[in-house]
Amino acid sequence: MITEDDLSIAATHRIIKKAGAYRVSESAAQELARVLGELGVKIGKEALEFCMYAGRKTVRGKDIRIAGEKVMDRWPTR
Amino acid sequence: MITEDDLSIAATHRIIKKAGAYRVSESAAQELARVLGELGVKIGKEALEFCMYAGRKTVRGKDIRIAGEKVMDRWPTR
Repeated sequence: MITEDDLSIAATHRIIKKAGAYRVSESAAQELARVLGELGVKIGKEALEFCMYAGRKTVRGKDIRIAGEKVMDRWPTR
Repeated sequence: MITEDDLSIAATHRIIKKAGAYRVSESAAQELARVLGELGVKIGKEALEFCMYAGRKTVRGKDIRIAGEKVMDRWPTR
């Protein structure tokens, strides 16, 4: 279900176009919003671990950056 | 640099809160928008391969779903 809390369908539509798609269905944009929302929470949880480890209460950009790099490292290069 | 093409900072702020963060800096929300935008393009490119393989010109929800599942499979379980 799509709620107002989710990433915008307009933004995820643009992202899929940016990946080179000729045409993008509404369901594809919705699905990407769902997938990125899920990935975002996972990245947020890892960032929170770094934040707590550093003894802070505020999640900062660098916490997200290091958590994001971990995801990118797992991406197979082509 | 953040442009209007990016995912909304309000949405990524909510996502980090949803991950359990006590407080979220502006830079953290911006960084998550950047990371998710980058991941979104990668997922979009994988989805496009499935789409073309199926002989279609329109990227559908199921193309994104299968590409997203591949990312989730790479996620280490804790």
